[in-house]
Amino acid sequence: MLIVQKFGGTSVGDLERIQNVANRVSKTKKEGHDVVVVVSAMSGETNKLIGYAEHYSKNPARAELDMLLSSGERVTAALLAIALNEMGFSAVSMSGRKAGIVTDSLHTKARIEEIDPTAMHESLKEGKIVVVAGFQGVTSEGRVTTLGRGGSDLSAVAIAGALKADLCEIYTDVSGIFTTDPRIVPKAKKLDKISYDEMLELASLGAKVLQNRSVELAKKLNVNLVTRTSFTDEEGTLITKEENIMEKPLVSGIALDKNQARISLMGVKDRPGIASEIFNKLAKAGVNIDMIIQNVGHDGSTNIDFTVPVGDLHDAKAVVDTFIQSGDIKDDSYNDSICKVSIVGVGMKSHTGVAAKAFTAMANENINISMISTSEIKVSMVIDEKYAELAVRSLHDAYELDK
Amino acid sequence: MLIVQKFGGTSVGDLERIQNVANRVSKTKKEGHDVVVVVSAMSGETNKLIGYAEHYSKNPARAELDMLLSSGERVTAALLAIALNEMGFSAVSMSGRKAGIVTDSLHTKARIEEIDPTAMHESLKEGKIVVVAGFQGVTSEGRVTTLGRGGSDLSAVAIAGALKADLCEIYTDVSGIFTTDPRIVPKAKKLDKISYDEMLELASLGAKVLQNRSVELAKKLNVNLVTRTSFTDEEGTLITKEENIMEKPLVSGIALDKNQARISLMGVKDRPGIASEIFNKLAKAGVNIDMIIQNVGHDGSTNIDFTVPVGDLHDAKAVVDTFIQSGDIKDDSYNDSICKVSIVGVGMKSHTGVAAKAFTAMANENINISMISTSEIKVSMVIDEKYAELAVRSLHDAYELDK
Repeated sequence: MLIVQKFGGTSVGDLERIQNVANRVSKTKKEGHDVVVVVSAMSGETNKLIGYAEHYSKNPARAELDMLLSSGERVTAALLAIALNEMGFSAVSMSGRKAGIVTDSLHTKARIEEIDPTAMHESLKEGKIVVVAGFQGVTSEGRVTTLGRGGSDLSAVAIAGALKADLCEIYTDVSGIFTTDPRIVPKAKKLDKISYDEMLELASLGAKVLQNRSVELAKKLNVNLVTRTSFTDEEGTLITKEENIMEKPLVSGIALDKNQARISLMGVKDRPGIASEIFNKLAKAGVNIDMIIQNVGHDGSTNIDFTVPVGDLHDAKAVVDTFIQSGDIKDDSYNDSICKVSIVGVGMKSHTGVAAKAFTAMANENINISMISTSEIKVSMVIDEKYAELAVRSLHDAYELDK
Repeated sequence: MLIVQKFGGTSVGDLERIQNVANRVSKTKKEGHDVVVVVSAMSGETNKLIGYAEHYSKNPARAELDMLLSSGERVTAALLAIALNEMGFSAVSMSGRKAGIVTDSLHTKARIEEIDPTAMHESLKEGKIVVVAGFQGVTSEGRVTTLGRGGSDLSAVAIAGALKADLCEIYTDVSGIFTTDPRIVPKAKKLDKISYDEMLELASLGAKVLQNRSVELAKKLNVNLVTRTSFTDEEGTLITKEENIMEKPLVSGIALDKNQARISLMGVKDRPGIASEIFNKLAKAGVNIDMIIQNVGHDGSTNIDFTVPVGDLHDAKAVVDTFIQSGDIKDDSYNDSICKVSIVGVGMKSHTGVAAKAFTAMANENINISMISTSEIKVSMVIDEKYAELAVRSLHDAYELDK
């Protein structure tokens, strides 16, 4: 097999840990696999360099930041190659450029445009372990870029896609994706497999492991993604396409998002296009709308409720105010003591009664559901934030996710 | 004017010092000059990275070391560009690759093969200050290389040559080249100008400032080199071609080399080719021969005396031993308590009596001269090491170098 293994900042946090990574990579190589390793900067390095830059400027040129920050991954890549060589393996480090990673020119958050895997292919053919500096690429004009948060994961997924690798393993300090947050439900179980779409819906469960950007790219490139820990030999969670998952569970996991606020617009004027006008202005202000409910009242006027991330609340209020001033909205209210609980599972597509079971579980605990939204593989409910953990535990039990 | 300014590790040793460098560069720019800056890694960085590598291997692959070490200069270059931008200047950092520096593939001590100054020219044309990461280049296959000790100076000189710059200023913590070591002769004077050839002969005086490799390259590319300090505004020493120096001093400086040992071969068989055989074998063993004296004794056999750097003494002895065993040499003796004092000056070419004055000065102090060698612009004398400082002071006085 050809396996891409990505090790994040914590996994390469000091010289001993880089040696551990070398041991793990060498084990995979000894099992007869071809290996491409993608590494991040040693943890703390990137922040140290950003601190240096901020010593001079609150707003350093992004292209210069990229020149600065891209050095950290190069150091780790070279050290890992040296460690592997010393263990008797033939290893070669490559910068993002050498690995053929070409991006657009949006410095500090560039997007990968294409990968020319020639150099990697050649080294693999010579039996070498290829160690690539993650998080970086070059523009077509040859300037160094970085890929933003989670950038090394993106490097790994894109490389796995370009090389048509059998597996792309993302190593972190977490052993995989769980049915829900184990801090809330200690008997939460690690999932063996999960589909891309489920993973995207369960984002909050994977927040510390994988960014949605990486999962989306893996889905697009059809890369089998595994998240696992670099600290033990425990198997991780495979994120793959739905067809590869034989036994489709009704519900795979329960996600909780406390970072939500609810905005209620009362007495919205009943004229055509008013809702479109409101949400267009919110979009222009960069406000991220999640759920929307519209009720037509007895008096002919309309109430609209929607949720936004807490961080967007301020901007949203400013937009709403303009409509209140113009008289298009009579009144508004805000509530940031809410949360969103979601049950996710591809099995929902083919089974009925999944949502009903969730509502029953909430009713049994006397938890009031104030908003509901559903998709093919998800049911989300907005409830009072104080019931958040109780709701998650009840749902986890109701779907017997610990079994 | 187009000025290349190079700042070494001490000059960019911390964030404050990099700010000082930015101030100095901006001053030159404000005076109306075009500026290309070449920077080293922050002092200590390179050694830290070498220490990391040695954690894994006593003998890391040189190509990996280059990947590792080349990161330090990139960091300094980016930080300096950020500092300059913040001061309102348009500055752009470039890696060795981006600056067009192509080297051979002798990793960790690569030689510059050519420079493609297109990118630098373009940025200069746009009015930008170009900040280049020194010490590094790329092979024609695109692998990163480093240039070995003094590599950033070489980068600066080569860039100045490629851009046909008017000046190449090398900033260090020393204010220039002195008539002799000020620790031995406190009234030693800083030289305003000195020719390339004199500088090469006075290597020991510039040892902490400039490597001969850089002076040789400056001579070859006809680059006007200035060494000066980054800590004050004091003018430095211009190293240029002889034609540019109007008033040629008889003697420019006195160099002292304590790192010499004398090897005496007694009773060398008087047969054709024996000397050639001995020195060929010494060359093959990597022994650096400096001065050679041959005396034919009364009995028809020959004595040969020569000097080598102390570090080569061991290897030289091994070679000599083989000739003693074969009977070609009767006996040998070694003396590492010697030193070499040299007087250097282009004026010697056209004036007589320069060497005689040196011999008189030695005689006045009762210092015995055991070997003498002369070139067009240099007289070197081997004397007992214990008289080293006395000899330098006497010569400095004899040629009135403090005037």
